[in-house]
Amino acid sequence: MEELIHKGQLAREAGYLLSGFSTNKKNEALNRVAESLESNQKFIMESNGKDMQNGEKSGLKGAILDRLMLNEKRIIAMSDGLRQIALLEDPVGEVIMMKKRPNGLIIGQRRVPLGVIGIIYESRPNVTADVFGLCLKTGNAAILRGGKEAFLSNKAITEVINDVLGSLNFPPGTLQLVEDTSRNSSIEMMKLNKYLDVLIPRGGADLISAVVQNSTVPVIETGVGNCHIFIDEFADAEKAVAITINAKTQRPGVCNAAETLLIHEKVASKILPVVGEELNKKGVEIRGDNRVREILPFSVPLVEEDWSKEYLDLIIAAGVVDSLEDAIRHINHYGSGHSECIITENYSNAQEFLDKVDSAAVYVNASTRFTDGNEFGFGAEIGISTQKLHARGPMGLKELTTTKYIIYGNGQVRE
Amino acid sequence: MEELIHKGQLAREAGYLLSGFSTNKKNEALNRVAESLESNQKFIMESNGKDMQNGEKSGLKGAILDRLMLNEKRIIAMSDGLRQIALLEDPVGEVIMMKKRPNGLIIGQRRVPLGVIGIIYESRPNVTADVFGLCLKTGNAAILRGGKEAFLSNKAITEVINDVLGSLNFPPGTLQLVEDTSRNSSIEMMKLNKYLDVLIPRGGADLISAVVQNSTVPVIETGVGNCHIFIDEFADAEKAVAITINAKTQRPGVCNAAETLLIHEKVASKILPVVGEELNKKGVEIRGDNRVREILPFSVPLVEEDWSKEYLDLIIAAGVVDSLEDAIRHINHYGSGHSECIITENYSNAQEFLDKVDSAAVYVNASTRFTDGNEFGFGAEIGISTQKLHARGPMGLKELTTTKYIIYGNGQVRE
Repeated sequence: MEELIHKGQLAREAGYLLSGFSTNKKNEALNRVAESLESNQKFIMESNGKDMQNGEKSGLKGAILDRLMLNEKRIIAMSDGLRQIALLEDPVGEVIMMKKRPNGLIIGQRRVPLGVIGIIYESRPNVTADVFGLCLKTGNAAILRGGKEAFLSNKAITEVINDVLGSLNFPPGTLQLVEDTSRNSSIEMMKLNKYLDVLIPRGGADLISAVVQNSTVPVIETGVGNCHIFIDEFADAEKAVAITINAKTQRPGVCNAAETLLIHEKVASKILPVVGEELNKKGVEIRGDNRVREILPFSVPLVEEDWSKEYLDLIIAAGVVDSLEDAIRHINHYGSGHSECIITENYSNAQEFLDKVDSAAVYVNASTRFTDGNEFGFGAEIGISTQKLHARGPMGLKELTTTKYIIYGNGQVRE
Repeated sequence: MEELIHKGQLAREAGYLLSGFSTNKKNEALNRVAESLESNQKFIMESNGKDMQNGEKSGLKGAILDRLMLNEKRIIAMSDGLRQIALLEDPVGEVIMMKKRPNGLIIGQRRVPLGVIGIIYESRPNVTADVFGLCLKTGNAAILRGGKEAFLSNKAITEVINDVLGSLNFPPGTLQLVEDTSRNSSIEMMKLNKYLDVLIPRGGADLISAVVQNSTVPVIETGVGNCHIFIDEFADAEKAVAITINAKTQRPGVCNAAETLLIHEKVASKILPVVGEELNKKGVEIRGDNRVREILPFSVPLVEEDWSKEYLDLIIAAGVVDSLEDAIRHINHYGSGHSECIITENYSNAQEFLDKVDSAAVYVNASTRFTDGNEFGFGAEIGISTQKLHARGPMGLKELTTTKYIIYGNGQVRE
């Protein structure tokens, strides 16, 4: 706890100072850090090598080792990410609204940094540089608590960053990595209300759920995506096939990939065989309800739990529905509020789907895979929020700010 | 728990439907309920009379009984509140941003209801009508858990409202009052993540802190205000006196009243005696640090804890500081992030105070008492947020909404 309180104090202090740093100064730091990460490649890769060795010894599996691994290409990607953030517009300082009240008070609402952001993440060391870039650009201090298995890599990256920040006179609490990687330090961070303004978990469903369940610090929940494609009775069959295949197979392991296919009974016998065949060709296992299985006998019987699953794999749940209304009801009931798409050429059905589906991103005739900060034109992304407070959908720089009211008076008092 | 799950399901269902109700329909309901509360005055006051009798029997004190009490005037005030909400612009449906991406996708961000809002409150039955009005106007379903002592009053008000809603075919889960007023039902509501999108506590510091500490549902923290007045070395003495007196004494029991006075050492011996005398005349107890007590010998010695207190009473902590910087540091350290004011005629000092003080509302030369939804021109207020996520400062209708992305495609897939 001592470590976190000390880091919290430093971060709080840094947060106050950072809110006054100019965009130029912050961009200079981002570009200088990008350079330095590249010139310190060898040092970073050596530290990463030790993490990899330890990971192999302790029996980590291929997927985790792959996430953990850094090579030249990945380090350059981190640096390029920082350079790109430097090019983005700085949201801090924007006055969103300003008006004069009848009593002469001028009331403005100014965008300001959140203050101190805590991040709990798992085995990807590139998150260290990404999060640093997003937080610095928005004038926030950051406390990072990365996974045990990536500790040496994270430490090396943080050291390189802090050398640059120190030389540019940034306050010492600007970026801090928690040294204690025991479970305790996560739990403690979740209760650090005095020093953290927000906590963002980045990782798998278990991590996110643990943070949501235990944190008293306000959390932004990111990630879980049980995304749906609904093929309406007025669907264009070609679009239906192309979008379903793209949403399911273009990159199945990510949160905006489709997990459930619903199809209107009026077109099921016509379109489902084509979609089914294409999914089959791509190696996708189809888990169908009874009506799907009548049309696609090769599909696997679906059980109730399949409707709620985020497979993150080449598997899709599929069902036939009687109406647009049933499809919407199904999605609002079983979905995770991430991204859903209707395929239709019917104007009213498109509007009804957009109106009634209660998700962060609702599409007509486009792949759910577009739910992404870059694809939405934000330039960078800290995650995709599936909660409704503060931020919903892909979060860019603006979502790492809050506002404050600034009020210019000339002696006004309240009657 | 059964009661809450059942109410949660009804509310979730109602939330989906309400998001599609037109502004006209919602305004009709608000006006009809306003009428009906007035014509059912007798019924409401009878129920309230029973609450008052029970309260007196069980030994409730004067202040709580006063909050609990309803009379004709207070019922008319509730109705007028609803009529005023009907006149406000409906934030739901506004498209905040819409743009075309290079791939032809049209991406818009539309303001939508949050869904289901939970409110935990104490002994004021007027909160029942207020919260109903704000939630209905913004298309949100509401689950209210009011204080035990006001249960019969809340029940009567809810019945009157629901009779009108029923006759206008609003869904049954639109407004629900929790019948179980034991401590259990509060605790259960704080864990009702599946059905509640946000939980807002309205009441004293203990209630708010209990909700923040225990809720896994996202919370908007409202209320605690340790507000500061800083009299700068370049202050206009008249403004300093008028604003300090207003901020402290115009209504001492509310969160935007001043609790601490700081004064620059260069003007302390000139201005403090005048301010001190005026405070004294108004019956305010001054708790001064050593340097204040040299100038105002009648002031009471201050202890460290006084700097953090929200007195909500005719008491003020007072200290002399050496510089603007010290004042800002003091405020950011001891304040609650609510409302702070600098009295100064110096341009740069005013700007520095606005920039560096980390609070929801920062004033130059005006009373902190203006931090209020009506005074800010929002027309209505659900509370004043002292957290940074989602909403900061007075919350109007807009703060009871979230957004969703609506995306119009014509077959786009991701490469």
